[in-house]
Formats: sequence, C-alpha cells, structure tokens
Amino acid sequence: MKIKLIVVGKTKKNELIKLINEYLKRINFYVKFSIIEIPSFKSKKINEKELKKIEGENILKYIEKNEVLFLMDENGKSFNSVNFSKFIENKIQLNKNLTFAIGGSFGFSNEVYKKSNQIISMSKMTFSHQVARLFFVEQLYRAFTIINNHPYHNY
Amino acid sequence: MKIKLIVVGKTKKNELIKLINEYLKRINFYVKFSIIEIPSFKSKKINEKELKKIEGENILKYIEKNEVLFLMDENGKSFNSVNFSKFIENKIQLNKNLTFAIGGSFGFSNEVYKKSNQIISMSKMTFSHQVARLFFVEQLYRAFTIINNHPYHNY
Repeated sequence: MKIKLIVVGKTKKNELIKLINEYLKRINFYVKFSIIEIPSFKSKKINEKELKKIEGENILKYIEKNEVLFLMDENGKSFNSVNFSKFIENKIQLNKNLTFAIGGSFGFSNEVYKKSNQIISMSKMTFSHQVARLFFVEQLYRAFTIINNHPYHNY
Repeated sequence: MKIKLIVVGKTKKNELIKLINEYLKRINFYVKFSIIEIPSFKSKKINEKELKKIEGENILKYIEKNEVLFLMDENGKSFNSVNFSKFIENKIQLNKNLTFAIGGSFGFSNEVYKKSNQIISMSKMTFSHQVARLFFVEQLYRAFTIINNHPYHNY
C-alpha cells in the first residue's frame, strides 16, 4: 500500500519545500508516501477551461488502475483530524494505493472529478495551492500519529 | 486602526518565520499589522489547566481597552475566504483595533474566552499551532486582497 499526493505546479519557495520534505520523511516512517508535481501549463494563451483540461489529463496519467483517488477541494466533505485519521485507517484496509490530489489555481477538470472517489475539504477557506501542500502533509502526518497513538496530536 | 495577532510560544522554524514575515510585510501594505509572541510556560510541572491560565493572563495583558478580540479555535464559526474578507471589512468599520489570538497546545483559558468577541475556525482540522500562524497570515492577506480587488485571490 502506497500513498501519493499529486500537486499541480512546482513548489516554488525553498522554505515550503523544506517544511514539506520534513513531513514527507516523517510520514514515510509509517507508510510509503511520495509527492508528484505535475507541470502547470498556465499561460495567457490558455483559458481556465483548457488549462484545467490539460492539467487534468496530466493528473490522470498518474492514476493507476485500482487506485483510489481523493481530490482536495474546499467544497468537499470536511473532517476533523481524528475523523480524517479514521478515514485514512479505513481506506488503508482496502489494501489499494491511495492518491490525493491538490489542483492548480482553478481546480480540477470534470474528467478528474469523474475519476475521483471522494472530495475532501481541509477548510472552507481558499488557501494558496502552494501553502495547501504543507497543510495536507501536516494533516496526513497527524493522521498517522493518531492511528499509531503517537503523542504529536495532543502535543 | 491596527490589527494584531497574538500567538503563544516562539515560532521555532526559520522557514516558517520567513514565510510568515513575507505575509506580514504584504499585509502591512494594507493595514498596520503586527504579531506578538507571548512565551509558552509549558513544563512537566504545570498541568493543562494551570498552563492555560498563565498563558491566558499573558494574552490578556496585550488586550487594550476598546479592542475587539477574536480567538482562532477549530470549534468556532467557519468562513470561506470571501466571507472572511467581508467580516474583516465590517470590523474595520467599527474603527477599533482588532486582535486575533492563536492559543497554545491546549487552547485558551475560560478568562480569555470570556473576553473574546467571537471565535473563528479556519478549519475543523487541528493544525500544529506553529503552522496555524502561517494559515492565518495567508488568510488575512487574502482578505485584504479581496477587499481591495487585488487579483491574488483568483490567481
């Protein structure tokens, strides 16, 4: 069982890269976890719909058969951290690879929504899709510490 | 009119400090904004209730008369970013100083809750109170860009 996070566009800030990599390492203590950055095709020549379509096709290239896909989207189902950890624990029992995706500036194409198993919201607020990566890895790490009774969550 | 953010404990990671300072600068383009770090008195000799009490007394020292106090707490009222910007815009019209507070590991004492005007939730999820600082400043910056029709929010 592996977990991956697909994000659109390079993480630009060195500080964010460092913070994210620290959680990446810590999560790998519990589970095989990787982050895939697909390129952003943002340009003035491409409109929002076309951009989402191209980015969507690239996201879907990384979704293998039998993988379960969750989209992070502010309009999705919201969890508190304990329930999110139960959600993860539950999905692990499916014994399938789990993929989470954070979209680009305009979100996901319809094709990506159709392929997804569930839409999850970390917050009703819109966060920069760069910062959202840090939120996600912190929360995924937190979920594994809760599952494993590590004191991080109550620290 | 000034806005301040009170946080409990030093921001430890250099990367977080840098990211937070960048938003601090950007917010100051719109409004006088500062961050006050009050010390954490966490120790094995102090229980949760005592810790919240001491930290609470220190938070309240920084609340001046006529100031409006908002507590960031996962059980508070949640906003999306546009509504949060409207909330801020509204409060600015009171022409009072606004203070937001992010508590320590165990949250706020009853005394702090009693003094507060509203409890606001950025997410149902629990984030590290260190990372929560970054979430808050990103969201406050976003609010001012929305109020001022700056394209950041839709970027």
